[in-house]
Amino acid sequence: MAPDAPRGRGRFITLEGGEGAGKTTLSRALAAELAGAGLPVLRTREPGGAPGAEAVRTLILHQGPWDPVAEAMLHFAARREHVAISLEPALAAGIWVVCDRFADSTLAYQGAGQGLSREVWEQLCDLSLGALRPDLTLVLDLPTERGMGRALSRGDANRYEMQGADFHGRVRAAFLDIAAREPGRCAVLDAVRPAGEVLSAALGTLRDRLGAPL
Amino acid sequence: MAPDAPRGRGRFITLEGGEGAGKTTLSRALAAELAGAGLPVLRTREPGGAPGAEAVRTLILHQGPWDPVAEAMLHFAARREHVAISLEPALAAGIWVVCDRFADSTLAYQGAGQGLSREVWEQLCDLSLGALRPDLTLVLDLPTERGMGRALSRGDANRYEMQGADFHGRVRAAFLDIAAREPGRCAVLDAVRPAGEVLSAALGTLRDRLGAPL
Repeated sequence: MAPDAPRGRGRFITLEGGEGAGKTTLSRALAAELAGAGLPVLRTREPGGAPGAEAVRTLILHQGPWDPVAEAMLHFAARREHVAISLEPALAAGIWVVCDRFADSTLAYQGAGQGLSREVWEQLCDLSLGALRPDLTLVLDLPTERGMGRALSRGDANRYEMQGADFHGRVRAAFLDIAAREPGRCAVLDAVRPAGEVLSAALGTLRDRLGAPL
Repeated sequence: MAPDAPRGRGRFITLEGGEGAGKTTLSRALAAELAGAGLPVLRTREPGGAPGAEAVRTLILHQGPWDPVAEAMLHFAARREHVAISLEPALAAGIWVVCDRFADSTLAYQGAGQGLSREVWEQLCDLSLGALRPDLTLVLDLPTERGMGRALSRGDANRYEMQGADFHGRVRAAFLDIAAREPGRCAVLDAVRPAGEVLSAALGTLRDRLGAPL
């Protein structure tokens, strides 16, 4: 394809999972592989991914505790900003987006973790996302204690990382439930394996599900 | 009534209107009159009124511009926090609340001023307020140029105050429309008059509408 030929819409790939599951490592590697295959790539994260949204991220992670609905609304306010000024323009321009966490994280953390109802979460999705949903979601799954060990060894823990094992157990179960409800969108990867094997599995999924030329 | 006798629920009074209409002056005076009549009073404001909500206020007023839906969601996230940890407990304890701006301001500023739909505003109200609505809303009305002159003479203008006359004209019209749609809840006060006369009119309205012993 010539460099200035019109491109189709990009693909929206989200990485989900608990603390220490290797999302950041995988998002870097995936973005590098996509770029190596000649695809334009935006690597981003939530909460954040746009200047205002990053400011909200700081509030969420380091202030509080918040009322659970207020906390979910802050996440979706940041998400709306991210969608409006970054994700939608990128996807419309044919860019492939790799996003570290998205709306599923709010359902897992504020829903299973803090009691937010699925109904309220769905309303907030409808309000803030328009028609945008991920084309593919990779759920990185590993036992809670393994992930927490990795996350806490990094130091500077945020409010979520400092929650107890029971909270993180509910979050893990919530991600697996999300994947089970939407098998067409989601793929669960065993994140206990070495990073290279997780990447290979992820690349295979991108080839199979999205036809990525990898 | 004995000091420890059970009290009924407090009353929720909101002050609304454009920049420089005298809301802060009136809220101070009203709170003093209610306290002077022996009623327990909480004087508060939005965005803000609770620690997390004040942090969101700073983001809204001094960062941005935001996507209009994101901005409305930030307002309602702050509002939810304010309602959950301050307004509802106070009202349940029999305290009269005088609040400088509430949900009507979001409809006027983000709706008429920035294009947010009434439908989205209503969904955000339902999500964040539960059953809470003001018992009485005093709308302070004055010509746009008068209010802007007052507001800008204070210095340190925020993002809203720096908008043009056309924006503030739409905001003024929106507040009058809100009052016309809900005459049972709202009363419009002519804010061109001296502060003492505005207070007298407000006290009369509290006596008539809420049976306040003033």
